Amino acid sequence: MTQTYSYQQLYSFAKNIFIKIGCSEANAETATKVLLSADLRGVDSHGIARLTGYVRLWEVNRINANPTISIVHETPSTAVVDGDRGLGLVVAPAAMQVAINKAKNVGTGWVSVKNSNHFGIAGYHAMMALENDMIGIAMTNASALVAPTFSVERLLGTNPIAIAIPAGSEHPFVADFATTTAANGKLEILQRKNQDTPAGWVQTKDGEPSTKASEVKNGGALLPLGGDKEHGSHKGYMLGSVVDIFSAILSGANYGPWVPPFPAYIAMPENLPGEGIGHFFGAMRIDAFRPAADFKLHMDKWISRFRSAKTIKTEVRVVIPGDPERAMEIERMNNGIPLLRAVVDDLNTLGKKYELEIK
Amino acid sequence: MTQTYSYQQLYSFAKNIFIKIGCSEANAETATKVLLSADLRGVDSHGIARLTGYVRLWEVNRINANPTISIVHETPSTAVVDGDRGLGLVVAPAAMQVAINKAKNVGTGWVSVKNSNHFGIAGYHAMMALENDMIGIAMTNASALVAPTFSVERLLGTNPIAIAIPAGSEHPFVADFATTTAANGKLEILQRKNQDTPAGWVQTKDGEPSTKASEVKNGGALLPLGGDKEHGSHKGYMLGSVVDIFSAILSGANYGPWVPPFPAYIAMPENLPGEGIGHFFGAMRIDAFRPAADFKLHMDKWISRFRSAKTIKTEVRVVIPGDPERAMEIERMNNGIPLLRAVVDDLNTLGKKYELEIK
Repeated sequence: MTQTYSYQQLYSFAKNIFIKIGCSEANAETATKVLLSADLRGVDSHGIARLTGYVRLWEVNRINANPTISIVHETPSTAVVDGDRGLGLVVAPAAMQVAINKAKNVGTGWVSVKNSNHFGIAGYHAMMALENDMIGIAMTNASALVAPTFSVERLLGTNPIAIAIPAGSEHPFVADFATTTAANGKLEILQRKNQDTPAGWVQTKDGEPSTKASEVKNGGALLPLGGDKEHGSHKGYMLGSVVDIFSAILSGANYGPWVPPFPAYIAMPENLPGEGIGHFFGAMRIDAFRPAADFKLHMDKWISRFRSAKTIKTEVRVVIPGDPERAMEIERMNNGIPLLRAVVDDLNTLGKKYELEIK
Repeated sequence: MTQTYSYQQLYSFAKNIFIKIGCSEANAETATKVLLSADLRGVDSHGIARLTGYVRLWEVNRINANPTISIVHETPSTAVVDGDRGLGLVVAPAAMQVAINKAKNVGTGWVSVKNSNHFGIAGYHAMMALENDMIGIAMTNASALVAPTFSVERLLGTNPIAIAIPAGSEHPFVADFATTTAANGKLEILQRKNQDTPAGWVQTKDGEPSTKASEVKNGGALLPLGGDKEHGSHKGYMLGSVVDIFSAILSGANYGPWVPPFPAYIAMPENLPGEGIGHFFGAMRIDAFRPAADFKLHMDKWISRFRSAKTIKTEVRVVIPGDPERAMEIERMNNGIPLLRAVVDDLNTLGKKYELEIK
């Protein structure tokens, strides 16, 4: 069912594809690093499986391979960045760097981005803050697949939030999650296996509860974290809304049902109120609050206390956010990245078109 | 079952109680305004029903009625505030004001608070930003009632997050929610009525799923938003953790299982790693990103689009966060605040002790 490739094999292939569509060497490297960080961390839906999708967006002129990424408005702690229709994989790290630079100067930096595209996994960008002893925050809106509580219509994307927090001798705390009950990637896996979803993940196109993994493909919707009103779906809806507003209404990007879709074959929404997709980034220097050593000491204590909590089954421990992804990264860096047959076929077709091979 | 009082009646009573325990006139007014905003907005669990609880904390010397609230560390966009064991109802607005002042100067302000106590409803503090054309954020940790995913132990509070966002001709967007499936207040209501909870709200003291509203009282735990792993409880756990870390590890307050309990009769945890309870506040000037008029125009469009979404039942509309609380506030300001008999009895006992009457 799967074929395994080394990180280096996929890195060379993806980088060369990005160069073929006109990216600079430096931008191709950044885009590849961000894209493959998803495969390494086990978020297969957001990694190289999407390479063809990005190329198709370029083919229909919805991505600019050589963007001029610029700050269009700023204060000492804030900026709005115009991504110039660039790959989100390139725009996002540039914008996060602006946030980090501002945090160096005045303690924190907050950057809202317009005119961008899909940026890979949010966690990558948030984690850029860690090496600077900063807390990193990254979020993005996305095309509408989610129905707010009581809605039949899809009005929000899966709008993920990532928050990376440095620790001392412990590994950093890295939360990265969609504001839905389940990420769309998980739904796609169930659909491929022809399995049902648990209750509370999806609804039909008429707004009725369902457990069919195919519902979203057929006009239904993913549900906000919580699932239904009784279980707090209005909270997931609020979270997804805040991501949408911070990413797009602060910057001037598209929002709600107007966010451009990722598949190039889906028509763009009409009467767009903004430009491209929006992101939001934050960086907070920990020593802007207290000495970094004190912060890290207590972060270590927090982490070890939670990790050693009493659990029902002694073999299942409380998970510190970021631990499973870090273990996966080591495993896949050492032993390769398994790709589904369908993904391999897709990459080979792409390679043929652009005269490249995975080797 | 209930007795209704005017806002003014409760205001005078609560203010005079705060003065009796030694608060200044100004602090008593602030504390009362914050406390009663919960009753007005329909969050009955956090309003005047807690007045006796605050007084008891003062009686056992866990609250300082005359705190010297001070900034102990700062940068242009950040500060740590020491609440000097003051009423959170007084410390929180002072700290939020620091965040607002910093946002005036450098675009945003971020304040972490230690050595405080329970601060009422998070929404009140976040909403302070609105009149300054700023987005306001408020969060707090609280004593541990919530079990992280897989944990039997209670390690987190209900750790609420509030986010208030200005609009133009529409009313502002105000989200204010506990990071659990259901707030503890809702559990208390079911317990009083001797009713079961829906699945996914609580677990037993051994970590087994339960629908008994009395579980938490008997050593069980509230569950993070999501309810169980299959429905994303790890996301609620991550959110609650971030609130805990921003509120307490950035500031030097107590965190996790060490957060001091609200009921004065419960013993303090041992070997405290910090001081008091922690909060975190943020303020972002909207014109630090784009002209305020543009932002508001698009916020109005966002709100009206979501409010007019197609719903399953035409009589049930998509709710814009903040709308129900605003309606309740108007209703209760006009027609009074209904209090349960038990709350009235409690207030009368308190009044007798301090030689005051609700009149």
